Amino acid sequence: MTTDTLLVFDEAVTRAGVEGWIQHFSSKGSAADLYRLGDAHVLSVADADLIDTASPALPTPTHRVAKHSEAWLGRRELRPSGTQVSFGPTTIGDGSVAVIAGPCAVESAEQTLATAAIVAAEGAVGLRGGVFKPRTSPHSFQGLQWDGLELLAEARERTGLPVVTEVIDPEHVKRLAGVVDALQIGARNMQNFVLLTAAGQSGLPVVLKRGFGCTVEETLAAAEYLLLEGNDQVVLCERGIRTFEPSARFTLDLTAVALWKQRTHLPVMVDPSHSGGHPDLVAPLSLAAIAAGADALIIDVHVAPEQALCDGKQALLPYEFAEVMARLAPVATALGRQMSGVPSVH
Amino acid sequence: MTTDTLLVFDEAVTRAGVEGWIQHFSSKGSAADLYRLGDAHVLSVADADLIDTASPALPTPTHRVAKHSEAWLGRRELRPSGTQVSFGPTTIGDGSVAVIAGPCAVESAEQTLATAAIVAAEGAVGLRGGVFKPRTSPHSFQGLQWDGLELLAEARERTGLPVVTEVIDPEHVKRLAGVVDALQIGARNMQNFVLLTAAGQSGLPVVLKRGFGCTVEETLAAAEYLLLEGNDQVVLCERGIRTFEPSARFTLDLTAVALWKQRTHLPVMVDPSHSGGHPDLVAPLSLAAIAAGADALIIDVHVAPEQALCDGKQALLPYEFAEVMARLAPVATALGRQMSGVPSVH
Amino acid sequence: MTTDTLLVFDEAVTRAGVEGWIQHFSSKGSAADLYRLGDAHVLSVADADLIDTASPALPTPTHRVAKHSEAWLGRRELRPSGTQVSFGPTTIGDGSVAVIAGPCAVESAEQTLATAAIVAAEGAVGLRGGVFKPRTSPHSFQGLQWDGLELLAEARERTGLPVVTEVIDPEHVKRLAGVVDALQIGARNMQNFVLLTAAGQSGLPVVLKRGFGCTVEETLAAAEYLLLEGNDQVVLCERGIRTFEPSARFTLDLTAVALWKQRTHLPVMVDPSHSGGHPDLVAPLSLAAIAAGADALIIDVHVAPEQALCDGKQALLPYEFAEVMARLAPVATALGRQMSGVPSVH
Amino acid sequence: MTTDTLLVFDEAVTRAGVEGWIQHFSSKGSAADLYRLGDAHVLSVADADLIDTASPALPTPTHRVAKHSEAWLGRRELRPSGTQVSFGPTTIGDGSVAVIAGPCAVESAEQTLATAAIVAAEGAVGLRGGVFKPRTSPHSFQGLQWDGLELLAEARERTGLPVVTEVIDPEHVKRLAGVVDALQIGARNMQNFVLLTAAGQSGLPVVLKRGFGCTVEETLAAAEYLLLEGNDQVVLCERGIRTFEPSARFTLDLTAVALWKQRTHLPVMVDPSHSGGHPDLVAPLSLAAIAAGADALIIDVHVAPEQALCDGKQALLPYEFAEVMARLAPVATALGRQMSGVPSVH
Repeated sequence: MTTDTLLVFDEAVTRAGVEGWIQHFSSKGSAADLYRLGDAHVLSVADADLIDTASPALPTPTHRVAKHSEAWLGRRELRPSGTQVSFGPTTIGDGSVAVIAGPCAVESAEQTLATAAIVAAEGAVGLRGGVFKPRTSPHSFQGLQWDGLELLAEARERTGLPVVTEVIDPEHVKRLAGVVDALQIGARNMQNFVLLTAAGQSGLPVVLKRGFGCTVEETLAAAEYLLLEGNDQVVLCERGIRTFEPSARFTLDLTAVALWKQRTHLPVMVDPSHSGGHPDLVAPLSLAAIAAGADALIIDVHVAPEQALCDGKQALLPYEFAEVMARLAPVATALGRQMSGVPSVH
Repeated sequence: MTTDTLLVFDEAVTRAGVEGWIQHFSSKGSAADLYRLGDAHVLSVADADLIDTASPALPTPTHRVAKHSEAWLGRRELRPSGTQVSFGPTTIGDGSVAVIAGPCAVESAEQTLATAAIVAAEGAVGLRGGVFKPRTSPHSFQGLQWDGLELLAEARERTGLPVVTEVIDPEHVKRLAGVVDALQIGARNMQNFVLLTAAGQSGLPVVLKRGFGCTVEETLAAAEYLLLEGNDQVVLCERGIRTFEPSARFTLDLTAVALWKQRTHLPVMVDPSHSGGHPDLVAPLSLAAIAAGADALIIDVHVAPEQALCDGKQALLPYEFAEVMARLAPVATALGRQMSGVPSVH
Repeated sequence: MTTDTLLVFDEAVTRAGVEGWIQHFSSKGSAADLYRLGDAHVLSVADADLIDTASPALPTPTHRVAKHSEAWLGRRELRPSGTQVSFGPTTIGDGSVAVIAGPCAVESAEQTLATAAIVAAEGAVGLRGGVFKPRTSPHSFQGLQWDGLELLAEARERTGLPVVTEVIDPEHVKRLAGVVDALQIGARNMQNFVLLTAAGQSGLPVVLKRGFGCTVEETLAAAEYLLLEGNDQVVLCERGIRTFEPSARFTLDLTAVALWKQRTHLPVMVDPSHSGGHPDLVAPLSLAAIAAGADALIIDVHVAPEQALCDGKQALLPYEFAEVMARLAPVATALGRQMSGVPSVH
Repeated sequence: MTTDTLLVFDEAVTRAGVEGWIQHFSSKGSAADLYRLGDAHVLSVADADLIDTASPALPTPTHRVAKHSEAWLGRRELRPSGTQVSFGPTTIGDGSVAVIAGPCAVESAEQTLATAAIVAAEGAVGLRGGVFKPRTSPHSFQGLQWDGLELLAEARERTGLPVVTEVIDPEHVKRLAGVVDALQIGARNMQNFVLLTAAGQSGLPVVLKRGFGCTVEETLAAAEYLLLEGNDQVVLCERGIRTFEPSARFTLDLTAVALWKQRTHLPVMVDPSHSGGHPDLVAPLSLAAIAAGADALIIDVHVAPEQALCDGKQALLPYEFAEVMARLAPVATALGRQMSGVPSVH
């Protein structure tokens, strides 16, 4: 059995340019399947021996990669410099440390706007806030839904922070995409392939949370559903896995972060709040996450955690969030990076 | 903090009869929320002390249960005799051992019809067959989709076996429900709450597979999404969980089966094929499953496993399936049960 | 790289007979290492091609097996009929279902003798009782130690039941072996290789409990430490593994039981008490265990569980144990087996 | 049920001083149990109300702590400033980042001395090297044993680095303790309580590796066995736990590191080599570990990993180790710490 070879072209190479390659293989009776990685074209060819027999007039691929695994559009070899994801004015994956913060769930105008103002003031470069909440029990608070979306829009208006919210229904994608700057796929939906495809088609950046029972490679395969829709604006998010250890809500898997940084060109985010489930764990897990290579953090902050309708007990108070930000900055520098949103001092 | 009390009424008690109770609580300024468990009404009341002050003319509840957990419509105390699920002519949950069998995926008319004929002949009382396949990678075979559904319909026509197939998209529910006898929610979608609600509204029986990273209680909470739609025709299905053990595909959790039989009135199914991932494990795991109390088994059978497009390596050959059936029957008898579909010898 | 080949000889073949084979290989400059599997000799030879060049006068091996794994003395291929373990008058591994029962810990003469009498009366064919208890915390009850051993001896005297107790210190092996009929290696010591070697040298049968974080294959490798000492009287015991599921104390892995029955000639025991951690789970897990192929069960019984100093909340009351025994018997028969200790009715 | 109260005394308070307290409680008919935490005395008293009735002449306890858990000598409340462990000239737990490095197993004089020289030159402050290797299979290399110990002694002689090696047999403790500077209890022996007690009695510092199937709290309880022997020179070591994730050898649990830093006064070490099982993971996991709060790292280094007899594939080459050290230093500084062994620049 032979392995296909992937030819990756520069974004400047047009579809027409790649067509020449397809015709070359076709003329030899060999298959060549065309894919897109963002604006770049990728050709999967069955017979690698034919590559060197092509006309020199054809555009030269920038990378030539053996297709080893079933999920291959996300492999680092296809884009060794990494993918930069544009989340409003914020870039995730450019080497900076981007912190997104906000309430687990949007609960009221007061709570949302106050929290947004605080996290913006403390250096967050994005606002999180759930409006449709996937809850284990149908009897739990399900989020403010469309009313919540308006509050998110207002918070963005006031703070200038781009906004990310979770999508749970393929039918919601379009309406959400009209308002927010990025969609989040929750851990429970990581293998909801219908939702992945819909989110991929939205054109928006997607934060893809790893399922708590899913592997490093399965997460890459889930991202492939997004990539296959021509959407390369994907951020993988580690948020803890299920293990036998009862002392924390989940076990944060920072080995996964290190592995993703090696295996995929997609940027990697870590959610220390939902993983640990306790505010005291947010600082050490955040520091560890960026030390392990994470490009971004997503942190629960709430102005009054004891009143939260959802997961309040893990949210940071404003002053605790400020402390975490203050501790992150020097470590980012020591890692040769800087906090996103902070002007570089060159 | 007080716990609500649940009043469960006989199916013969009408909505009007229960309204009297609601008015009773309302007249005392106390809340009473109305739910349905299949055809029965269930009232959740905040102030249990008011129950005994009601008019004796009101219909007497059959059960009075403290509402301890967040998912409570499925608790065994509400229906101690258990729920019987009607899957075509087959009843699951009546004490018999129901075996559903068929190919993991519907791949061709020949394969489907031949497998259906064989499993019917060997005593299966239902046919399984996937037409929309949720696959880890988007590059894998995704099922024959609507073409496959026609093949399932034809197989039912020929064999008389009721048919269950997996639903992966809320948009598909109605069309599928027009053809099949039961819907299956796959393990990867156990917490896809939008899909659960849609399936609950279909009115069809639903086989709810436990997510491989989800707990016994989370599965009950997922079932609550179905029950809340007034659909009590729900079968829980254990199909293995993720553990550190690499020798089998998943670790079958028969403790979960025993716990569900204690905790819920819903019948319980076991999938020994997807759990073990190897044909040699199907017989011992099937026998163990019914010994642990499972009401039903769902087994992969394929006339030519080596040609299967999906999970072929775990499917039983026809003669192996016949052997499993032959070994199950005496154990069912020893457990004071009998194989479903076999006339009882009273 | 070549794989060694194992030549297995009948027990009647003496060391002298096997020496001829060693000289044969030696004369060709090829290595042949001699091992014992109980009373049988096993030769591991590097060059399989030389086997057929040996003199026909040499004793013919009964089995010729490729040595695939690192732990190979326990592989089923070496003794396809299975190993029978003699535990006092009881045989484990002869197709019967052997139930060993007794208190988790020996706590007093009264408790031990009363429990022993009851389990003997109800059909147990062995008595369990811990005298040295390995406890997570050093502040917990550590067992009656040598005083407890005398109580076990007295219980055996009165009931005729063979006795198994856990050994936790290599220094204790000899003294324990002078009294009990079998040693148990606990889950926490499964990879305490010094203890394994000492237990192997005792000549007593050993019940080897699987570590709750250890794999099916690691358990076989641990058994290899016992087998290498020339002791083939080893019973593997599944007692639950650590998973994310919090509803039971451990997750019983009956897939492991099925796999061991395929992979090793050693008999397999299941401990439903320590696995589930709740008396209500003992009956379904016991039934499932023998249906999955287990040769034996080891069940906690206590005359007054609420007074137990160790793990009392999982122990069966005498009448509950009688019920379990009554339910096991017909299932054993349906599986073509019978309860150990019950005269066969042929 | 009442909870005991712990009275912790300064190390300057003698046994005689504490005796006065014991007599005080005794005179009131109430129990008071005496323990030692290193050189300090700790009194566990049943009736807290009696504390304030004691004579003011008695020495004042420095801390007064409710005894909540079963393992309490290691609780941070008893020694909020943390325990400093003296490993030869190196101190672990003083805020610095201590790196211990060396070969997984001592294999030859050449390999051991060359590796020791290199890790010393690159800033390691301790040498690791296994001479008794606990191996899953008895057929694997078991270490050079006593011959290896001499090589370790020579490496210490030449480099001045203190040496830690694993102990697997209680019988070995004394002889090992005559040579090495610290003993290591391996993951497989974390609940080998006989070995723990023997190691505790050695008076040497002990590196206690967390069992890969054991919890955060069970590790603290295992440390209690060491502490109870009056030995407070204990370092807890996280080295990965068993999960369903197959991409790395184990899943490093840095949440455990953060929790231990909160819950215990004992210093915490991380082994990124055995956890990840791959050299490429050592740098990110090491950086993450110290960011999460680890006091020390223990890293496999080998001059020729491809020739290693044990776990060679995870060892760093000398130049890779130098790179890791160079990356750790600025992060340590950013965390307000410094590398152990590097003179502070005040």
